[in-house]
Amino acid sequence: MTTVTTTNPATGVQRDLEIQESTDADVLDATRRAANAAEDFAQRPLSWRAGLLRAMAEELESDGANLVALAHEETALPLARLEGELRRTAFQLRFFADVVLDGAFLHVTIDHAGDSPMGPLPDLRRARVPLGAVGIFGSSNFPFAFSVPGGDTASALAAGCPVVIKAHPAHPATSQATFDALVRGARRVEAPEGILSLVFGFTAGAALVDSPHITAVGFTGSVGAGLALWERANTRSVPIPFYGELGSANPLVVTVSAAQQRGAEIGTGIAGSMTLGAGQFCTKPGLIFVPAGDAGDELVAAVASSLEGLGEFTMLTSGIADHFRRGAEAIAATNADVLVRGDEGEGARAASQLFEVDGERFRSPGAYALREECFAPLALENPYVSSQDLRDSVLAAEPALTFSLFATDDDPDAPWLLELGAQRAGRVIHNGFPTGVGVSWSMQHGGPWPSTTNAGATSVGAAAIDRWLRPVTFQSVPDSLLPPSLQESNPLQLPRRVDGAWRTSPEGPART
Amino acid sequence: MTTVTTTNPATGVQRDLEIQESTDADVLDATRRAANAAEDFAQRPLSWRAGLLRAMAEELESDGANLVALAHEETALPLARLEGELRRTAFQLRFFADVVLDGAFLHVTIDHAGDSPMGPLPDLRRARVPLGAVGIFGSSNFPFAFSVPGGDTASALAAGCPVVIKAHPAHPATSQATFDALVRGARRVEAPEGILSLVFGFTAGAALVDSPHITAVGFTGSVGAGLALWERANTRSVPIPFYGELGSANPLVVTVSAAQQRGAEIGTGIAGSMTLGAGQFCTKPGLIFVPAGDAGDELVAAVASSLEGLGEFTMLTSGIADHFRRGAEAIAATNADVLVRGDEGEGARAASQLFEVDGERFRSPGAYALREECFAPLALENPYVSSQDLRDSVLAAEPALTFSLFATDDDPDAPWLLELGAQRAGRVIHNGFPTGVGVSWSMQHGGPWPSTTNAGATSVGAAAIDRWLRPVTFQSVPDSLLPPSLQESNPLQLPRRVDGAWRTSPEGPART
Repeated sequence: MTTVTTTNPATGVQRDLEIQESTDADVLDATRRAANAAEDFAQRPLSWRAGLLRAMAEELESDGANLVALAHEETALPLARLEGELRRTAFQLRFFADVVLDGAFLHVTIDHAGDSPMGPLPDLRRARVPLGAVGIFGSSNFPFAFSVPGGDTASALAAGCPVVIKAHPAHPATSQATFDALVRGARRVEAPEGILSLVFGFTAGAALVDSPHITAVGFTGSVGAGLALWERANTRSVPIPFYGELGSANPLVVTVSAAQQRGAEIGTGIAGSMTLGAGQFCTKPGLIFVPAGDAGDELVAAVASSLEGLGEFTMLTSGIADHFRRGAEAIAATNADVLVRGDEGEGARAASQLFEVDGERFRSPGAYALREECFAPLALENPYVSSQDLRDSVLAAEPALTFSLFATDDDPDAPWLLELGAQRAGRVIHNGFPTGVGVSWSMQHGGPWPSTTNAGATSVGAAAIDRWLRPVTFQSVPDSLLPPSLQESNPLQLPRRVDGAWRTSPEGPART
Repeated sequence: MTTVTTTNPATGVQRDLEIQESTDADVLDATRRAANAAEDFAQRPLSWRAGLLRAMAEELESDGANLVALAHEETALPLARLEGELRRTAFQLRFFADVVLDGAFLHVTIDHAGDSPMGPLPDLRRARVPLGAVGIFGSSNFPFAFSVPGGDTASALAAGCPVVIKAHPAHPATSQATFDALVRGARRVEAPEGILSLVFGFTAGAALVDSPHITAVGFTGSVGAGLALWERANTRSVPIPFYGELGSANPLVVTVSAAQQRGAEIGTGIAGSMTLGAGQFCTKPGLIFVPAGDAGDELVAAVASSLEGLGEFTMLTSGIADHFRRGAEAIAATNADVLVRGDEGEGARAASQLFEVDGERFRSPGAYALREECFAPLALENPYVSSQDLRDSVLAAEPALTFSLFATDDDPDAPWLLELGAQRAGRVIHNGFPTGVGVSWSMQHGGPWPSTTNAGATSVGAAAIDRWLRPVTFQSVPDSLLPPSLQESNPLQLPRRVDGAWRTSPEGPART
């Protein structure tokens, strides 16, 4: 048995926890119990499911002071940030309770029997059902919002899927404590045993993806780990969907007019956004495109001076800091110009870095290091000399989670750049920074490969629930044998499409 | 250059067509032209897109007599069936025009800027956009409805994606003629050049999946070919979604009461369903579970005598007939009991086969031949001795596209069997046969692995359009710079969710 240890990145001090790493047998057992709980869980009323999510939110809040202190010790993230993140995480659980009660996520669609140009059609009724037990990988950078009690767990439970969560090794004590809070919430509403498990250890991750009881996986983390697990999910004897949110370099473009109008202000904002959470956001703006010449130079000078004022950061782990140091060296090795080269630090300590290359060097096929994400307070600035130069560079950058545009009112470059952004990213931001991903009905947190493994999916917002459902059509099934969601009288008062017309309530008029 | 040939399966006579197999360069060129057309196509109004689909339907109908004659020569399918299939195919194109005009497929979701427990949230607007150029593989068994002008093509064009179609070698002349009709429709409405291409030849299929200009693939066909292409799509340097509809063995269960009440009638129906299109339906009922004992025996006797009355069939190709002969031999080699063993035939000729095994033999791990689909007028009957025996066998069978249940009114076994069916298949049918897949809002044609590669997707019905779209969220973008689908005044009159409330029309009341 291997004891799980936790490390304080600010001090480097390690301590043993009263937790053992999970064996393959432990993981198999947890996933089996999750699969066994799936049927009971799926059949509980939607109102019960919403109550489960709300009870979990309350239990997280009740233990808030303890959870924030633990997370602060394990991540070195500021207390205020962690308090806000915990509020967001509780909000997210309640938001998914609203999504469950809204009921539109079931996609209820009913076609009564009738004639068609193809001949008679039988009564057909379609709704989405939970996939079954789901595996979730907590990420390092948001110990609450994208970890054990985060969006993947909340959306999977909202869909009616039991979850087995792999704790991130960067915050095992926080993982255990948040898990305990979720379990207290589940017990309060007498949830089926097995709908929630937590496993620890590197090999547990592989065992989780391999388990025949797991029907889908949600992952937030590095491209390397994500792709290895994605491949694993695809090479099982029964492949399963793997929803990986792998991060991206997130282009940010400043037009000529915007740089002229308020370059210094934008530059200061860029420095703040790229160093938020010590640059460890998957939406960190990593590629900064500014016009060559005075206005762009002034903007870049503002980024640089702001960065220099920010001093050193404590990264989440010394491993991430090491990776940062290697990434910065790889960029320096391409002979990129150095604008800010903070002290490389040691252990988990590091300082921000800002490099500059022109479009031609940026696009050169071998210079991959310039275009890949560096999960750290590091950005690469690229002065463009023409619209064509800018367009070519944006197209050479990999597709991303976000694309940010700074432009002026009636900016002649805004229309084509917004269009280009929509082709290359899942979220397009006008005069704003990409860090900060609101939980809402209309959020999209997922973009084209390689930023995520499924551009059609999101890991934040109401549509995150879609990943854990599949449709089933019932043909000519008598009303009394149909699931309540599909019965003619609409006992659950679900919004539904009937005979082609969408109705938002059972009494409401059909759309014509 | 290799000339494409066509074979009449009824006579074995081959003839050369005035078509050459596509080279890898041809495929690359077609996909490049498709990708170049994507932006123009995506930006045309939805009403224009609906007009395109309707013009294509009209052109297919105008050339109907010729198309049916060609398809009859190439597939040996009966004329009346082909006439019905062409009607269905034109209906399907018009149905997707309705889906486009309905607009709900865009999933328009708007959250105005406001406060939240997480702090202020910016204006966020989400809509789905076309993925880009799509590769489509025509299938052998439906030369219209699941081939060049079929559901994959119709749904991809409805989504706003240009298509490059790989013709099935079993009906190249029909493929070319239906393609020509679609092109006439496209020209009538002055569609962008490149939104529709057709390629021929085995290597063209691999080149299509490999092309960097292709963003997703739709496939209907065999498990072997489908999995090879699926793997190819996953091992590209930029992997793309591969929607494979691979067929399945489609369990059909008759309860004790139903067998007692009307075993002979059900048996006659089974024989008809399993031989429809010479058993070459992906929804053919291939696994028949009947109660052991007199009632079940009577039912099986009715299947057998009906099959014997049907005589020989002409399969779509001699290759499919060879595969059928090998499949029947593999089942016979397991010492399954033979109930009907029609003449094995030669060339494309073959006759129906009915085998019987008990539950224990059916479930034995090595007897995979008993559980896999045989794409032919062949079924395996399994007499069950108890509910447990039946449940175990259904769980041992692979998940499927369909699950059919024959039961009586107030049948005590109906509830648990319908529930089991919903766990194992994408469509659950009560007192009906699985062959026949209606095009409608609520159809689901897709089930858990290995019946399809994505249980969340369907290749028939309105939701088939979902495969070719991805969401983009616009944050704080000024109204005049938003795509029309997301503008505040709702100029396209789309149904949309605004601030959490679903509205089916711009004037309609919000759901509370």
